[in-house]
Amino acid sequence: MNTIATHTPSWVLARRAAKMNPSVIREILKVTEKPGIISFAGGLPSPKTFPVAEFEAACAKVLRDDPQAALQYAASEGFGPLRDMVAAGLPWKVDPAQILITTGSQQGLDLIAKILIDKGSKVLVETPTYLGALQAFTPMEPEIISVSNDEEGIDIADLSAKAKDARFLYALPNFQNPTGRTMSEARRAALSTRAAALGLPIIEDNPYGDLWFDTAPPAPLTARNPDGCIYLGSFSKVLAPGLRLGFVVAPKAVYPKLLQAKQAADLHSPGFNQRLIAEVMKDGFLDRHVPTIRALYKSQRDAMLEALAREMPAGKPDATLTWNTPAGGMFLWARLPEGMSAVDLLPYAVDKGVAFVPGAPFYAGNSDPRTLRLSFVTPSVEEIHRGVAALAAAVKAYAAELSPRALTV
Amino acid sequence: MNTIATHTPSWVLARRAAKMNPSVIREILKVTEKPGIISFAGGLPSPKTFPVAEFEAACAKVLRDDPQAALQYAASEGFGPLRDMVAAGLPWKVDPAQILITTGSQQGLDLIAKILIDKGSKVLVETPTYLGALQAFTPMEPEIISVSNDEEGIDIADLSAKAKDARFLYALPNFQNPTGRTMSEARRAALSTRAAALGLPIIEDNPYGDLWFDTAPPAPLTARNPDGCIYLGSFSKVLAPGLRLGFVVAPKAVYPKLLQAKQAADLHSPGFNQRLIAEVMKDGFLDRHVPTIRALYKSQRDAMLEALAREMPAGKPDATLTWNTPAGGMFLWARLPEGMSAVDLLPYAVDKGVAFVPGAPFYAGNSDPRTLRLSFVTPSVEEIHRGVAALAAAVKAYAAELSPRALTV
Repeated sequence: MNTIATHTPSWVLARRAAKMNPSVIREILKVTEKPGIISFAGGLPSPKTFPVAEFEAACAKVLRDDPQAALQYAASEGFGPLRDMVAAGLPWKVDPAQILITTGSQQGLDLIAKILIDKGSKVLVETPTYLGALQAFTPMEPEIISVSNDEEGIDIADLSAKAKDARFLYALPNFQNPTGRTMSEARRAALSTRAAALGLPIIEDNPYGDLWFDTAPPAPLTARNPDGCIYLGSFSKVLAPGLRLGFVVAPKAVYPKLLQAKQAADLHSPGFNQRLIAEVMKDGFLDRHVPTIRALYKSQRDAMLEALAREMPAGKPDATLTWNTPAGGMFLWARLPEGMSAVDLLPYAVDKGVAFVPGAPFYAGNSDPRTLRLSFVTPSVEEIHRGVAALAAAVKAYAAELSPRALTV
Repeated sequence: MNTIATHTPSWVLARRAAKMNPSVIREILKVTEKPGIISFAGGLPSPKTFPVAEFEAACAKVLRDDPQAALQYAASEGFGPLRDMVAAGLPWKVDPAQILITTGSQQGLDLIAKILIDKGSKVLVETPTYLGALQAFTPMEPEIISVSNDEEGIDIADLSAKAKDARFLYALPNFQNPTGRTMSEARRAALSTRAAALGLPIIEDNPYGDLWFDTAPPAPLTARNPDGCIYLGSFSKVLAPGLRLGFVVAPKAVYPKLLQAKQAADLHSPGFNQRLIAEVMKDGFLDRHVPTIRALYKSQRDAMLEALAREMPAGKPDATLTWNTPAGGMFLWARLPEGMSAVDLLPYAVDKGVAFVPGAPFYAGNSDPRTLRLSFVTPSVEEIHRGVAALAAAVKAYAAELSPRALTV
């Protein structure tokens, strides 16, 4: 209990409040959102992909056809036709009664934390993991445990060693934020089998799954064991984040409690927005629209890979960065040489006119200070080339101030 | 810890989940939303008051002028121009930096619970109090204590006796949900002084304050001691609930933690909706619009008072109900004779074609089973007259099945 001094020195904060922190990323974004900075930092979808004309038509239609219902209080579960569309669009058999529309998928994480985490509960996460999930879980005061993983996904042996009494494993198998990694089919199969054997529920977060570049990712974990998983989806990456709509697919064993938590949290998500999304999505709009997002993001990923290879070629003395090749999504994961720190690099980068997010905040346990997340979706191809050149210059400037010894260790 | 049996019998619910319950009101609404039922049950603003044409124009303008920002991720604090308008519209000096836009004012209650309530914390509420607040507070496992009050407001002596170590008092001083009561100027002054002396923070909820019928209510508690209060407001009652927007005014001592809780809960409230509200509100729209809501609701309150006096006249053998005269808002509070229960009356009412909400769920402590809440804003004047006649008939039918002895006690 920490008392804050005010004119009425009476505000006593809950213990959990001491564990909440400002979003590191949002703080970094504030610093780096100076005019002229090329930002690889934000996780912002390209505004070019927002279907503005479709939303304009949907607004007009919803307010013409059904304004009184669209603007009134509504059911906590969500708008029926939207729940039907969501259920029908998922690659396993889902009853629309299992769909809960949420105020962004971030709210899904908040509701899950409320109903599944007691103080001290063990919660397993990937290494690294989505920062927003850590922020949603932390107020419920879990013990968050990092499960090691490789490029294929979760390490099954490490998971088994750590799973006893864990409330759930939180995983983001497709084009993960922050690493861009995708869990392989073999690892998904092994994870699904082992989790079921362990009695370990899985929270599967899939905001990026539709944004694949060459081939669709393997089937979701939830499709393999629907009663053992809660699945989170989002409209933010395929339509627009500014409407704040996502959804949860929950087994019947937990749905009622999620719904009660939802009622207490905000009564329901905006019915007007739900109708807009349903109106835009009907007649298969996403089947035409999402391929254009995939093509755009693929071209931007390719530009970033090309620029990285040009500016920091492997095997050369200038090889200051290694990176992966994400098969979809919005992020690429890179790593500095030993002895360097992405946090320390950041001011050099901002000085050269480019921003990124250091990887450290994404680790629940020991962080790898050499890692950084590069978003390739918001800047243009031309900006990506300039931004990567600036990043290479920043690494050089930073390296020049480090002792030669530290760099050659 | 209660384990739910599933195919993977592995879902362990948090202890707090056992304390969550389905909203009694929402369950009642499901029963009573049969076609042909006249509903005094819901707390739904009259859809006649929704400014549909203004929203249509605002949608077109926002999507024409600023679509990329309106549809993108945005700041957790809320849309700057909207925060400025909210601050400027409040009757005390408020820095826009103290405004947090929330996903309905229900979310404000959820965030406050997260940052101020530990398990076992004492929280004081009115008798009865807003059910949604009880639902928002309960997951954080407080000890909720009911402070007695009369028609003027909170009983100051009872408050003083119960205030030790309480985290806050939650109060809804204007046209309270469920009772329609308004706290008098004298009681506000006394409460404000005593709370400051006790070091007791006040959470002041004011969704209905603009909906006064003859004279504006006295100044908010927060205006009297801004550093000792958190104030909640809503756009749901003056514009439309379906956009799910409200706001919190918080002192600098607690704002940062509320903001962090907001980030974790849903990142931010829909930026598109915030721009719509700001667009509709600019140029003083509410100054022209809100008086029309007041006039409509006053005429409907008057119709209900007239119908009640006609159907259940005081002093006659048929005097089966007593009621108050709310000076604003949406609700009237009524009471059955001794020996009757509003819960038991409900099926008779539904049978006669009218619905209401029993008062019992609104009590944190011992409830008064004879009370019921009647909303006068959703039905038309003609429906109010028919509905009250049906209610009187229901009371007669219910009374006929009770023993004469029970009724005359």
